[in-house]
Amino acid sequence: MANFKGHALPGSFFLIFGLWWSVKYPLKYACRKHKKICWFGSKVGFQRVEVIEGAVKAIFALIGILAEQFVPDGPHLKLYNHEEKQWDHLMNWQHATMYFFYGISGVVDIITHTTKAVPVAMDRMMLAIAVFVEGILYYNHVHGRQELDLHIHLLLLFAVFGGALCIFLEVFFRGNIILELFRCSLCILQGSWFWQIGFVLYPPGGGPEWNQNDHNNIMFITMCYCWHYAFALLIVGVNYGVVIW
Amino acid sequence: MANFKGHALPGSFFLIFGLWWSVKYPLKYACRKHKKICWFGSKVGFQRVEVIEGAVKAIFALIGILAEQFVPDGPHLKLYNHEEKQWDHLMNWQHATMYFFYGISGVVDIITHTTKAVPVAMDRMMLAIAVFVEGILYYNHVHGRQELDLHIHLLLLFAVFGGALCIFLEVFFRGNIILELFRCSLCILQGSWFWQIGFVLYPPGGGPEWNQNDHNNIMFITMCYCWHYAFALLIVGVNYGVVIW
Amino acid sequence: MANFKGHALPGSFFLIFGLWWSVKYPLKYACRKHKKICWFGSKVGFQRVEVIEGAVKAIFALIGILAEQFVPDGPHLKLYNHEEKQWDHLMNWQHATMYFFYGISGVVDIITHTTKAVPVAMDRMMLAIAVFVEGILYYNHVHGRQELDLHIHLLLLFAVFGGALCIFLEVFFRGNIILELFRCSLCILQGSWFWQIGFVLYPPGGGPEWNQNDHNNIMFITMCYCWHYAFALLIVGVNYGVVIW
Amino acid sequence: MANFKGHALPGSFFLIFGLWWSVKYPLKYACRKHKKICWFGSKVGFQRVEVIEGAVKAIFALIGILAEQFVPDGPHLKLYNHEEKQWDHLMNWQHATMYFFYGISGVVDIITHTTKAVPVAMDRMMLAIAVFVEGILYYNHVHGRQELDLHIHLLLLFAVFGGALCIFLEVFFRGNIILELFRCSLCILQGSWFWQIGFVLYPPGGGPEWNQNDHNNIMFITMCYCWHYAFALLIVGVNYGVVIW
Repeated sequence: MANFKGHALPGSFFLIFGLWWSVKYPLKYACRKHKKICWFGSKVGFQRVEVIEGAVKAIFALIGILAEQFVPDGPHLKLYNHEEKQWDHLMNWQHATMYFFYGISGVVDIITHTTKAVPVAMDRMMLAIAVFVEGILYYNHVHGRQELDLHIHLLLLFAVFGGALCIFLEVFFRGNIILELFRCSLCILQGSWFWQIGFVLYPPGGGPEWNQNDHNNIMFITMCYCWHYAFALLIVGVNYGVVIW
Repeated sequence: MANFKGHALPGSFFLIFGLWWSVKYPLKYACRKHKKICWFGSKVGFQRVEVIEGAVKAIFALIGILAEQFVPDGPHLKLYNHEEKQWDHLMNWQHATMYFFYGISGVVDIITHTTKAVPVAMDRMMLAIAVFVEGILYYNHVHGRQELDLHIHLLLLFAVFGGALCIFLEVFFRGNIILELFRCSLCILQGSWFWQIGFVLYPPGGGPEWNQNDHNNIMFITMCYCWHYAFALLIVGVNYGVVIW
Repeated sequence: MANFKGHALPGSFFLIFGLWWSVKYPLKYACRKHKKICWFGSKVGFQRVEVIEGAVKAIFALIGILAEQFVPDGPHLKLYNHEEKQWDHLMNWQHATMYFFYGISGVVDIITHTTKAVPVAMDRMMLAIAVFVEGILYYNHVHGRQELDLHIHLLLLFAVFGGALCIFLEVFFRGNIILELFRCSLCILQGSWFWQIGFVLYPPGGGPEWNQNDHNNIMFITMCYCWHYAFALLIVGVNYGVVIW
Repeated sequence: MANFKGHALPGSFFLIFGLWWSVKYPLKYACRKHKKICWFGSKVGFQRVEVIEGAVKAIFALIGILAEQFVPDGPHLKLYNHEEKQWDHLMNWQHATMYFFYGISGVVDIITHTTKAVPVAMDRMMLAIAVFVEGILYYNHVHGRQELDLHIHLLLLFAVFGGALCIFLEVFFRGNIILELFRCSLCILQGSWFWQIGFVLYPPGGGPEWNQNDHNNIMFITMCYCWHYAFALLIVGVNYGVVIW
């Protein structure tokens, strides 16, 4: 949805997952390090957590798809407008496609951690694919937009492709706390940046619009992106510290 | 061949290999995991399969080269038109070159698995090179085409270069089921996308042509590509499930 | 600061660190190789060195931020000019942001090597992030400049992204002397290139300005960059030789 | 030197090294595999070979630099033309810079294999840097040329950057026969492509010049590049076969 809510919704999803991961992975790391027999660190307990996580991911994806399809000005599952002979609501369909891949990732998570048929690294692989597909969609999403709009979306790609690479590496280096925390920080960055995009492109409360072609705005937005990331790093660091002590 | 059949032929080759791999690798994985003494899992049996696979690959490549060269409007091995003083049927020659590298890969497969002279990882390396060369050819293939034509070919490059990277990683991580399934899915994607290109650019049955410069068409095609991949993932997943149970 | 000093300051910081590293890592390598019980090679001694290094890094970053903010024509922490309704001194703010990430890296170094709570590879990860953020800022920094200015800044990106990649690899291959020396050489290159940028864009002593659009100047600058790197390699080589013998 | 000989000289250097490597590495591999006590496979014998190789590399580089500087229309070590107030013979200087880095690589080879002070992987690292610097120089070399000239040089970059990546991987996977043969094939490709560039851009014997902007020529050159690579693979394959049997 090309409005504020359409960016706030995925932003919230990413923020929730980023924050949750920034608690979960330090906890797991602490359990493993001190060889304490905590419920969370046990194999069964951890698997249950992973299954719940996958289920939540799938539900979020379903909410996202339904929201994109059935908002009042949405496509309602209609893809082609036969009267005007053109594609209908492609933006909503693209967003729904993005959610759909996260949904697949959630389902694969559940299958991976409930049965033993699938190698355990498959959950990371599928998540990496989902993130990469998001990147491809975004990259082609901004075709023909104005400069600031384009730039603000392309900045997101650093977080998206960085995240996809990080998760792909986790296929081979599973349980590496450094990669896991890096993933958390990129996930929080993505979440907060979705909110930022919403605030810049669709100012809520009817504020004045940003000048799309002002070079200063573009330079500010780049810097702002870095600040968001510094903030994400701070959150991950604080959560890590609190969990460890 | 710049027509529907010219895209359907390689598409079918890729689909056949993708589907075959999505059965072969889970089977191999299941055999190895359960330490069952199945014919397929034995060293001799497996080598025989690899040799046959290489032979089929080489034969497919040969069919492709012959088809490109000796169709009625093909070059018939003539490269330079001395009358018009220009290169002749370069498209067909480029396609034939692409097939030729897959042919080399097939021959290397046979040599690798019949003799012990060549390290076993050489089959993956040669396949990675063949896929990468395909990518280079495609990248320069689309020079000066219309926008939709360009975009639909460039999307293919994600599958091609992703596949080349994946196979190159297999040189080092041989037998990694995650990478093998990833390769299957990309191979099926490539196959089905060749068919899609054929349907879009040369609609069989004389359907109306697509508007090459409509921005909506480009956005739809991007999304369509993702759906093809979701479909490829589904096929790989179902085949994996059937084989394992 | 868009003047000579504003490039000489970070240049000096990078040179100091590059030179220090080109002494430190060979020393460490020699101690480890000969299993001599030298103070520097001991665990406690080495940790102390790392902590001091982190502190110096943080102090340099603080000096950089203060210099960018409080020079006479600096922003003095004012980001938005309400009178002219536009962003104020964005260049200084971008530079300060760059320093800020190096500051975070310094603080993480101190935490990593004084407590045992954080995995030791975190110092490399944070440094890689800081260098990568510098790269993103520089990449968007040069938007809309003249050709020579653009080219001279983009050349820096080879050193920046090369360095980020190298440090990221060190997360996995910690203590690899090859990577460490490579990092030294890129760090010295960055330092000397900052000085070079200062000399070219803001010739001190009021020399004549360079022709920004002369193609020959651009070709010369590219070659000059390679010479700087040859020089950096020479320094690293000589330091390595002196330390080892 | 922007003439036929200026491309034939480096082409010959690369061809000689590529052919030599395609004999050396299979020989080494065969010795190691059969645990035969052949002179070549022994540590001392092999080190001597590496030192000679480094010396030859350094001598080739020296010949290249001298040729670029002291040909009749060369710069004779003069970099700046004070009369015309512009840089002089930048092309020759760039080529000399390229040779210079290969010279450094040769010297590092000698040092690495005569003393024990330097870790053995340093020879690969330095070669990777030399190849990468060649890539950077070439990338900026073609600025402002005509389309075919540009394209034919950029194609070379696939071999150059592919080679740099391959050699960089050898730092970590030293002695991997797959990577070594891959490097051979790319080196031969580079050599034969230098000759091809010479034939296309400066036809010897005064043949007709190629039309620089004909799209067909560009497509043909791309395909021709792939054929060169197929040929390089064939040579490496045949040499490997002969050596092994």
